[in-house]
Amino acid sequence: MSLDRLFNPASIAIVGASADPSSISGRPLRLLRQHAYGGAIYPINPKYTELQGVRVYPAIGAVPEPVDLAVLAVPAPVVPRLVGECAAAGVRFAVVLSSGFGEAGASGRRLQAQLLEATRGSGLRVVGPNCEGFYNTAGGVAVGFSPAIDHERGFTSGRPGPVAIVAQSGGQGFALFNRGLEAGLGFSVVISTGNEADLGWLDYAEYLVDDPATRVILGFVEGLRDARRLVAVARRAAAAGKPLVVAKIGRTEAGRRAATSHTGNLVGVDEAYSAAFRQLGVVRVDDVDEMLDVAAYFSHGRLPAGRRVGILTASGGAGAWLADACAARGLELPPVREDNQARVRSFIPSYGNTGNPVDITAQAVYDGGYERALGLLLRSGEFDALAAAVSLAGADHFRARLPELRRALDGATVPLVYYSYTSATPETLASLRELGVPCYPTPVRTARALAWAAWYAAFLHRADDVAVFGSPPWGKVHKVPRPQEGGDRKWVAAPDPLAFVADAGIRIARAEIAHSPAEAVAAFRRLETPVALKIHSPHLPHKSDVDGVRLALATEPAVRDAYADLLATVRRRAPSATIDGVLVQEMVADGVELILGTTRDPQLGRFVLVGLGGTAVEVLGDVVLRLAPVSAPEARAMLDELRGAALLRGVRGRPPADLDALVGALVRFSEHAARLPPSIAALEINPLLVLPRDRGVVAVDVRLELEDAHA
Amino acid sequence: MSLDRLFNPASIAIVGASADPSSISGRPLRLLRQHAYGGAIYPINPKYTELQGVRVYPAIGAVPEPVDLAVLAVPAPVVPRLVGECAAAGVRFAVVLSSGFGEAGASGRRLQAQLLEATRGSGLRVVGPNCEGFYNTAGGVAVGFSPAIDHERGFTSGRPGPVAIVAQSGGQGFALFNRGLEAGLGFSVVISTGNEADLGWLDYAEYLVDDPATRVILGFVEGLRDARRLVAVARRAAAAGKPLVVAKIGRTEAGRRAATSHTGNLVGVDEAYSAAFRQLGVVRVDDVDEMLDVAAYFSHGRLPAGRRVGILTASGGAGAWLADACAARGLELPPVREDNQARVRSFIPSYGNTGNPVDITAQAVYDGGYERALGLLLRSGEFDALAAAVSLAGADHFRARLPELRRALDGATVPLVYYSYTSATPETLASLRELGVPCYPTPVRTARALAWAAWYAAFLHRADDVAVFGSPPWGKVHKVPRPQEGGDRKWVAAPDPLAFVADAGIRIARAEIAHSPAEAVAAFRRLETPVALKIHSPHLPHKSDVDGVRLALATEPAVRDAYADLLATVRRRAPSATIDGVLVQEMVADGVELILGTTRDPQLGRFVLVGLGGTAVEVLGDVVLRLAPVSAPEARAMLDELRGAALLRGVRGRPPADLDALVGALVRFSEHAARLPPSIAALEINPLLVLPRDRGVVAVDVRLELEDAHA
Repeated sequence: MSLDRLFNPASIAIVGASADPSSISGRPLRLLRQHAYGGAIYPINPKYTELQGVRVYPAIGAVPEPVDLAVLAVPAPVVPRLVGECAAAGVRFAVVLSSGFGEAGASGRRLQAQLLEATRGSGLRVVGPNCEGFYNTAGGVAVGFSPAIDHERGFTSGRPGPVAIVAQSGGQGFALFNRGLEAGLGFSVVISTGNEADLGWLDYAEYLVDDPATRVILGFVEGLRDARRLVAVARRAAAAGKPLVVAKIGRTEAGRRAATSHTGNLVGVDEAYSAAFRQLGVVRVDDVDEMLDVAAYFSHGRLPAGRRVGILTASGGAGAWLADACAARGLELPPVREDNQARVRSFIPSYGNTGNPVDITAQAVYDGGYERALGLLLRSGEFDALAAAVSLAGADHFRARLPELRRALDGATVPLVYYSYTSATPETLASLRELGVPCYPTPVRTARALAWAAWYAAFLHRADDVAVFGSPPWGKVHKVPRPQEGGDRKWVAAPDPLAFVADAGIRIARAEIAHSPAEAVAAFRRLETPVALKIHSPHLPHKSDVDGVRLALATEPAVRDAYADLLATVRRRAPSATIDGVLVQEMVADGVELILGTTRDPQLGRFVLVGLGGTAVEVLGDVVLRLAPVSAPEARAMLDELRGAALLRGVRGRPPADLDALVGALVRFSEHAARLPPSIAALEINPLLVLPRDRGVVAVDVRLELEDAHA
Repeated sequence: MSLDRLFNPASIAIVGASADPSSISGRPLRLLRQHAYGGAIYPINPKYTELQGVRVYPAIGAVPEPVDLAVLAVPAPVVPRLVGECAAAGVRFAVVLSSGFGEAGASGRRLQAQLLEATRGSGLRVVGPNCEGFYNTAGGVAVGFSPAIDHERGFTSGRPGPVAIVAQSGGQGFALFNRGLEAGLGFSVVISTGNEADLGWLDYAEYLVDDPATRVILGFVEGLRDARRLVAVARRAAAAGKPLVVAKIGRTEAGRRAATSHTGNLVGVDEAYSAAFRQLGVVRVDDVDEMLDVAAYFSHGRLPAGRRVGILTASGGAGAWLADACAARGLELPPVREDNQARVRSFIPSYGNTGNPVDITAQAVYDGGYERALGLLLRSGEFDALAAAVSLAGADHFRARLPELRRALDGATVPLVYYSYTSATPETLASLRELGVPCYPTPVRTARALAWAAWYAAFLHRADDVAVFGSPPWGKVHKVPRPQEGGDRKWVAAPDPLAFVADAGIRIARAEIAHSPAEAVAAFRRLETPVALKIHSPHLPHKSDVDGVRLALATEPAVRDAYADLLATVRRRAPSATIDGVLVQEMVADGVELILGTTRDPQLGRFVLVGLGGTAVEVLGDVVLRLAPVSAPEARAMLDELRGAALLRGVRGRPPADLDALVGALVRFSEHAARLPPSIAALEINPLLVLPRDRGVVAVDVRLELEDAHA
């Protein structure tokens, strides 16, 4: 379905147009005429025959020509009837500005249902209701009533350009537009999505991915309906190389549900969105500045091929601040190669610095040293991006050096960004935009935009090689084990869930169930290794909470004594629990403890997660999630994101862990997770021990959580 | 020593004044005249008799009147002689703009020494060299050559006000001033400190704390000379209620030194500065925006009494974004009390929201509901601050409602901040400043400034009750144990360091040293509890690296076997280590593992640190530092800052830990640490086990690191 006739309508009807310039019904006509919209305009209102010199029709059915778009600014109760008339008249799109629908209690929700009902069977698609409309800068299509696009309220020009805004808040959408214009951005389309009774955020985003005028899509998002479609839309955006830049606000109900499992506690629904965004190449921003800065970068900056940044400055302090900001965001600042340092030294004062940052001194700036150094570093092949700390307040100096700057940039493929520590004139900033050089007013904002650009570039690179995630091939459906009567009604303890892990091709620590001290000793003999004893009860999935584990038993008497002690302790601490026996399990030493699990988000679907194990670390929540399944490169990216990743590389004399085996297990487990039925809410290997290199991984304990509905 | 005559000189000599308007020597005279400086001006240059209509003297000695301040803009090699002449002529202060000193290699460093030598015995104090001068807005004292204060280069007005800037980079200092003016800030003094051959950052800051025109001091800092003085200056600033707001750049040599101990690894010198700043109430900012936003708050905002924030909005999206930003920064958003919700409901549409955020809807704004709700919430006693998400683009609307806004604010003691999602006019912003309402352009910047204000207010509150830190009463000096010949020459293993911990009044797990299996068994009998065996060797401070620990031995045969196995293992893994025996130590169960330690920073002195223990957590670096000693409230603040603080409060069915005992141990250990001789680089209890409530804390292992000089 194309939204082309929505954003570029040949004709617009304004249903409920009025003469009152201060009311919502009076504004749409004024706005369209202010913006010199070039198509036909049909005001509809039985009370008028003419408004602002335009002929008014009594009803949509009376308009003699086909109408692409109807704007409705009438009281909510009459909207369903009038939308129905639009549908009957063959109108393609209706923008419902009126409020009083889904956002306004039960009666509003009924009206919203009636509104949708009125379009049934017709091709009519609805924007809103309860929205502020949209603005297509290139066509002067100013639909709605926002003061932010009202020439009578200070609006001057929409500055056509590559940035689109799709906002689930009219106020925030047009405010971002207002702030963005101030920041020098150019826009294709701004749309307020309102209640999304019909068309939703993903519909607009999908259309804009294909819109040739749009190169970057900004989103203000509170929640996505049919969130699974995000995967398809984001992949399409990635294929087009058009970044989605999203501020995701608020928390949803679903977060609370997830809190029942402690894996769930680590996750929460907001983290699910964050993880999906990271995986899908969606830039998730925290603030308005960050969003507009990133938009500026993608509007005219080039993508860096990696994270190596060269810093050029004429002020030691500015260069140092910028360097700190870059390093803090994971950008790398390798020293300039010695031969290039020597070249720079030849034209700067001796008290300059040729390492990285390259500080050519204020003196050299006046001698043309800045453009020379810039040209040299852009072509040295040592850096994936250059960041320059400059003072652009002197507009005359900038203008005088512009030809040299142009020459330095000519043919260079490495991106350049500016941090101007003094305030630049609009003319200077416009020249820089033309040269493809984003310019920021602070060190952190410069570094942050550059870091996002590098992140996005790395995502595009990884995405080339990505598994088919998000649309799992629904394979072998497991029979879900039933928790025993009277037991914990949601959790199923090992060994039942072990089968699920074995299916994923992950080795499980060898174990047998014993029902007496003698059986335990016999199992110990067969295992031929020190063992752990663990209580086995459907009622006690959290064994250590009842002191139900004994570790490192190396002799037969130790096993026998531990069995008795274990049973006595657990019977005392959990007298009503049914005890099915004691698991005698081989001890696995020398491993790094991880958690490997899967969880389901009701909106986004099945996730795989990996985290550092151990109670202390669970409290710190060092966990990374992805939509399942993941490819090997994605699995490696997950492990790199763990704050405690150093543990896997070997610390304090410990050997490096078997990363390859871990990546393999993560990939297989994620593929397996993607095929699990929805009735399995969570499956968790905790701990998964990652042994030293070439020795693989071993699952020691496994738990499985069922959906509430099955409890 | 007062700097009053520096910043408010009655007379200024310009040594090396020239007629060249483009050179540094030509600018100081022009700037002073542009700014209508009211004191006497004496240009000094044997080549001229008159410059810009002002009489020129051939030498400073020829000036007939006393000179408060001399500005030098002459080549570096002649600076020492001319400064000497100034000293001889009784000049009080010299601002040396010239570069080519400490920043310019060995010959520059010699010149800088000569410069200082030339002032010896005189009262002359030197600013710089290699600085850009300073600007005192109120007196028109524009000393130096910065284009940022040059009317001929676009500068318009310095806008006197309460913000001072002290910058260790002339470029950044005057750039902050430039950006600050743009943001509406008013300034008292801007100074570029240059090489700080004589006067340094702390001298200026100390003076400005007492300056009645200054209410907040911004610092661009690369490193502090005589950093221990920071404590005194910061305490003085706290007593005056004038915040220091600092961007601290760069890393120093000392960080590398600290890396030798793994406590040191967690620390690093930058973390030492961060910790000191946190403790001393210094607001450490990351970026220019953040610095100016905080300065705007402290320029005219009130301090909140706590962290409870009420949010008022007319746009659901803006309110939600602001709420997310506040919550992410630790501000609390309690719901509005039901009776007040009912009051708000009475004058807003039914689709508004009266919880928190309070969304009165755009409709109610036009009916005066905004000011009504504001007045109500400001006086409800439920909140420590109000944050309002508003659209200020409509200057006419703002002007019309200003009397109502004034009435709402009249007599209110709770601070109010604005997030304006559209761009406000300068007139609107000036009105808000006058009302004491800081206004920010994004949700995060609003929340961040408010969070810093709450943080600073909490600091001032805590500081009332603070121990005398930073100036330790030099008490009992310990005899530092000598590491044995051939051993690890820096680390001393337990039990020698145990005495240091016992002196701090911290209970140590009972232990004896055994030299044979029989002695070990005898010790086990005496201890009457399960024990651990630990290798004791001066060469092996990191016992677990050589598998030198056996845990939870509960029977005599187990102790005997473990002794033999332990010795064999360690001899195999560390054949050259001298082994002094085996420590037989009581096992302590049920505790939360922490690290409690002390380290020394060469600049800032003695620190105490507390962190979560366990290898995984050490990798994640969850550690908090403070200058030693700390008070009990400060110790509690440290524990609250631990990311894993939840562990101490009891998680997953574990009982809450004995926090009171931990706070007591932390305080006593910090007092003890403050008295340790500098030859002890680090002392570390690892683990310190914090037992359940009322059961105290126990030190299990202790290590002590000596300064390199003693090795």
